[in-house]
Amino acid sequence: MAQDPLVIFTPSGKRGRFPVGTPVLQAARSLGVDLDSVCGGRGICSKCQVAPAFGNFPKHGVEVAEDALSEFNSVEERYDRVRGLKPGRRLGCQATIQGDIVVDVPPESQVHKQVIRKRAEAREITMEPSTKLYYVEVAEPEMHDPSGDLERLIAALADQWDLTGVKTDLHILHVLQRALRKGGWKVTVAVHLGDDTQPPKIMEIWPGFYDGSIYGLAIDLGSTTIAAHLCDLQSGEVVASSGLMNPQIRFGEDLMSRVSYAMMNPGGDQEMTQAVREGMNTLFEQIAEEAGIDKTLIVEAVLVCNPVMHHLFLGVDPYELGQAPFALVTSDALHLRAAELDLSLHPAARVYILPCIAGHVGADAAAVALSEAPYKSDDLMLVVDVGTNAEILLGNKDRVLACSSPTGPAFEGAQISSGQRAAPGAIERVEIDPITKEPRFRVIGSDLWSDEDGFDASIAVSGITGICGSGIIELVAEMRLAGIVDGPGLIGAPKQTGTERCFLDGRTYSYLVWDGSDEGGPKITVTNRDIREIQMAKAALYSGARLLMDKFGVDTVDRIVLAGAFGAHISPKHAMVLGMIPDCSLDNVSSAGNAAGTGARIALLNTESRREIEATVRQIEKIETAIEPRFQEHFVNASNIPNAVEPFPILQSLVTLPEVSFNTGNGGQGQRRRSRRRSD
Amino acid sequence: MAQDPLVIFTPSGKRGRFPVGTPVLQAARSLGVDLDSVCGGRGICSKCQVAPAFGNFPKHGVEVAEDALSEFNSVEERYDRVRGLKPGRRLGCQATIQGDIVVDVPPESQVHKQVIRKRAEAREITMEPSTKLYYVEVAEPEMHDPSGDLERLIAALADQWDLTGVKTDLHILHVLQRALRKGGWKVTVAVHLGDDTQPPKIMEIWPGFYDGSIYGLAIDLGSTTIAAHLCDLQSGEVVASSGLMNPQIRFGEDLMSRVSYAMMNPGGDQEMTQAVREGMNTLFEQIAEEAGIDKTLIVEAVLVCNPVMHHLFLGVDPYELGQAPFALVTSDALHLRAAELDLSLHPAARVYILPCIAGHVGADAAAVALSEAPYKSDDLMLVVDVGTNAEILLGNKDRVLACSSPTGPAFEGAQISSGQRAAPGAIERVEIDPITKEPRFRVIGSDLWSDEDGFDASIAVSGITGICGSGIIELVAEMRLAGIVDGPGLIGAPKQTGTERCFLDGRTYSYLVWDGSDEGGPKITVTNRDIREIQMAKAALYSGARLLMDKFGVDTVDRIVLAGAFGAHISPKHAMVLGMIPDCSLDNVSSAGNAAGTGARIALLNTESRREIEATVRQIEKIETAIEPRFQEHFVNASNIPNAVEPFPILQSLVTLPEVSFNTGNGGQGQRRRSRRRSD
Repeated sequence: MAQDPLVIFTPSGKRGRFPVGTPVLQAARSLGVDLDSVCGGRGICSKCQVAPAFGNFPKHGVEVAEDALSEFNSVEERYDRVRGLKPGRRLGCQATIQGDIVVDVPPESQVHKQVIRKRAEAREITMEPSTKLYYVEVAEPEMHDPSGDLERLIAALADQWDLTGVKTDLHILHVLQRALRKGGWKVTVAVHLGDDTQPPKIMEIWPGFYDGSIYGLAIDLGSTTIAAHLCDLQSGEVVASSGLMNPQIRFGEDLMSRVSYAMMNPGGDQEMTQAVREGMNTLFEQIAEEAGIDKTLIVEAVLVCNPVMHHLFLGVDPYELGQAPFALVTSDALHLRAAELDLSLHPAARVYILPCIAGHVGADAAAVALSEAPYKSDDLMLVVDVGTNAEILLGNKDRVLACSSPTGPAFEGAQISSGQRAAPGAIERVEIDPITKEPRFRVIGSDLWSDEDGFDASIAVSGITGICGSGIIELVAEMRLAGIVDGPGLIGAPKQTGTERCFLDGRTYSYLVWDGSDEGGPKITVTNRDIREIQMAKAALYSGARLLMDKFGVDTVDRIVLAGAFGAHISPKHAMVLGMIPDCSLDNVSSAGNAAGTGARIALLNTESRREIEATVRQIEKIETAIEPRFQEHFVNASNIPNAVEPFPILQSLVTLPEVSFNTGNGGQGQRRRSRRRSD
Repeated sequence: MAQDPLVIFTPSGKRGRFPVGTPVLQAARSLGVDLDSVCGGRGICSKCQVAPAFGNFPKHGVEVAEDALSEFNSVEERYDRVRGLKPGRRLGCQATIQGDIVVDVPPESQVHKQVIRKRAEAREITMEPSTKLYYVEVAEPEMHDPSGDLERLIAALADQWDLTGVKTDLHILHVLQRALRKGGWKVTVAVHLGDDTQPPKIMEIWPGFYDGSIYGLAIDLGSTTIAAHLCDLQSGEVVASSGLMNPQIRFGEDLMSRVSYAMMNPGGDQEMTQAVREGMNTLFEQIAEEAGIDKTLIVEAVLVCNPVMHHLFLGVDPYELGQAPFALVTSDALHLRAAELDLSLHPAARVYILPCIAGHVGADAAAVALSEAPYKSDDLMLVVDVGTNAEILLGNKDRVLACSSPTGPAFEGAQISSGQRAAPGAIERVEIDPITKEPRFRVIGSDLWSDEDGFDASIAVSGITGICGSGIIELVAEMRLAGIVDGPGLIGAPKQTGTERCFLDGRTYSYLVWDGSDEGGPKITVTNRDIREIQMAKAALYSGARLLMDKFGVDTVDRIVLAGAFGAHISPKHAMVLGMIPDCSLDNVSSAGNAAGTGARIALLNTESRREIEATVRQIEKIETAIEPRFQEHFVNASNIPNAVEPFPILQSLVTLPEVSFNTGNGGQGQRRRSRRRSD
């Protein structure tokens, strides 16, 4: 007796023998090949498309004849006519095996397909969303054996999809009977596959085969902005991205002023809760409109945020976060209903909030950890999410440490005399000629440097309005490299620096970057007080990293990842000149962009990753900088800008740090602040 | 070495040896003795009170010395001083073992105590509620090892109470931090122990030791009235009972007219849903006020109702229940949140709805089954819940059958010419002298018979206004026994019956019960049409029972239980005279009162019973009378009132059924209706 035909699936390489006439989908399923199907092999959904290969495959040891699959059948012909089937594609549920065959499962036909990411080094996201679509045929009611319509639907899900223990949301009961009858006892259901707080649940039902998709939101709830990506939960694609200002800003720019607002105003926390939830709902309207979908198709949202936002969003008074021991009301991940958070999405939509690491290291930091995965790294990684608080992670696959460091808002352009938010008109890049001490710069909104032709025209609309966070970093670093600022952070006098751009400004000197006062614009300067602010901020960041390195017992790190919007714009070289980050080869310093948002998207699209980050967060060693004497020590030591005598070998191999000293010895610079309030 | 002291607990008889100094509570726990404690042995809650016995106990083989327990300690002294300890009682957590001892655990100290029931034959209810109180000491936050306050509370519940996997409701996060700090890190929590749709959840939190109780509602949602019992979930006691008219009555008296209302009026089902939910909320206010408790202490409700009420309460259009195949939207038990049903109780309160048996046999019938437990009976039991639909259960521990039979509203006094609801003024008991054919009766609101002295005075306020359901049964049965009505149901002429109370009333005769027209009151009569209505109703009831007996393959039953308010007032003898129920020894016919309400109470107080009735309902064989040809056959045969020639041996041994026949042969009585619409 001849052997059954051999079927080989690529790219998995899974193989097996099946009787002539076996549908390809069935063969794939019995081998555990990842081939999608929503309709369960009924020739409706077209998700099971495969690409058979013919000819000689010495690698696989088979010769595939032209007739190794059944001929196009009427279902495939109709599908091709109506919807179009790519050349060479077959419907896996219709094409049957007739001889030895090699069948490729293209990425779009895989359930657990990988989402395409832009960054080369970025981790892959394998699709494993919490909510999936299933097409089922439900038994009709029978007077001789009465049972509920729901119970027959649940039985069909068990029989046809091996989904057991499925429950339903109440609203499904309101539409179930009509949907079943309208669809002729065939329906498509969206099933949430369950989590820590609930069993699998039917979320939505459509009569017949539902040809659309369902969506999820990855939300990064920041103190300043709320940003969201709307993702297709079947393809994993981002179909729209949108953001808005956090409406809580009217209660205080930074987090600490919001905590104070709650303390000073009875019910103030509730006002802020309402404001942020309303803002989110506005954002949902906005993003659904942008994507052209009904927002009730959004069945899931994943949220990341810092602890204060976390509490205010949940409706919890952030009082305890404002004082030692900085106790979170809850640190674990949360599974909630959108409705109980007043979020207007699908009526049964679920919200997942990543775990918080500690009182100052929130779900946003957990999301950064998920995105950058230091806990999977062989190299020792330093991951810094730079904001008004810096969240710092240090570790590798053996051990991860985390802390938060109160950098303050200087890196965002606040508390800097000419500082501003990153917006058109803001100086973002700077170079200072070490000989002439003259600056050239670039402004957000223009691609030209200030000394290039056409620059003035390119900024005609925005003007030159101030210096943003990345601009001030570069400015101070360039001032240091040009010998305008010394290691301790003093700006030199004109006679010391050789430029009239340095001018006496009160008791200290300032450096004139740009004078727009003739045209009614601002006079943009860097004051010595600005330098101090930057020193404080960078010292806080560096000391946090350094403290973790001490705890880890290392003096150097292998890689540095700068996360966050600020991290995306910062120049690693200038950051190192300032001494913000530890000495590291510039090749190994990278920007991860909005890693917190990426972490939210990973958790949205892959439920396994939720368990991964929950387990990881439990393992992360939390270091509270406020009670670590070494942090203060590092902070004091780190307030200087690096100079030639201090050990920054990699930095020193890159640049020359001028040996200047502008200290007049009269203490006129005032006392340096040694402690900083915690803020934002 | 001397043996450790022997400790014997009564009434369980559990015994073991424990080192001197072991607290009694600890000994009880290690032996699995059912001894309550909310505070976990900290001398706060006094739930672990025990009664040590001293002296010689030959039965147990011990001699208990006076010093077999430690002396009263300061905790017990303080408790006795402040709250009072019954003589002979000790606190099990404070008294320690010093020698051989016999310790009685009084019922009130048992967790799984049995609720006292009034009926001797009633099943016991063992306390095992879904929500319990726990006192815990929570670790304080620690900066060196940050964790959420919730996570430390959950850890405390696991450590101190072996409760694992506990989650929380969102609202707890809003109050948790304050409660923990106010209680000095000692709190009492109410934990719902979980169900099919959720893990164990913290429902409520109180700072320190909470000395009060938590409550649950057992609700019988009828088409006419909504009745509820408020139960203490710790003691099991009913602390208040209340009821109100179902506000849906304005949309239709019976269920079928409500189904019609929904069909005729778009959104009519939603109006009715809103009405019944508002009615429930009114009832909750009422019952909480009666009990003098805050209604947010009500953490659980169990609901039973018929299928139409079930759907309308859930917000489901009852359309499908109005037509074959009478498909329920869902038949399984439901675990819901009170908030999603717009019920205003504790914010996290849970609602459990018993399973429905079939499209016409609802959760109320399931509750009757739970209360009367035919599935546990050795005898063959017929359980009839008499309403406008009769739900009938027949079975024993091997097999249970169920059906519903459309009795119509005649048994409730509707569609009877002088009929009325059971209310003061309604005739409820009747006797007719077989010689004089004169009636005497009793009226609701008076304890006197109409021929007794003082009767007129006793009814001065209510008057005599009509005949209620049980009254009409007795009247017709008495008319039959007095020879005023013949077997086929005709009222005789005066010359046939020998009384002028029979009078020509259109084409047939009526019987005058009472004439109050001289005083401006009604003339209360029984028309031949009334007899027909009663015949139809009783035939429907009897045929349903008979059909189940056929299916079971029996001709007699061992016991009959009449459930429902009507069943509570009906006279078994008169019911048998009418042929409503099968022939059965009167000793074996009993009334179960509001068995549906009792079933709800059992399900409220004992969660194990929920699993029991869910499993039972799946096993019950459902018979749909509408499609059973034998039902029609029985119905036709059963429309006659029993007479001497038909085989009712037990009935005939009790009473003499006069052999009268008033048929004139002219067919003037009109066609008997052979089919009845399904209603209520």
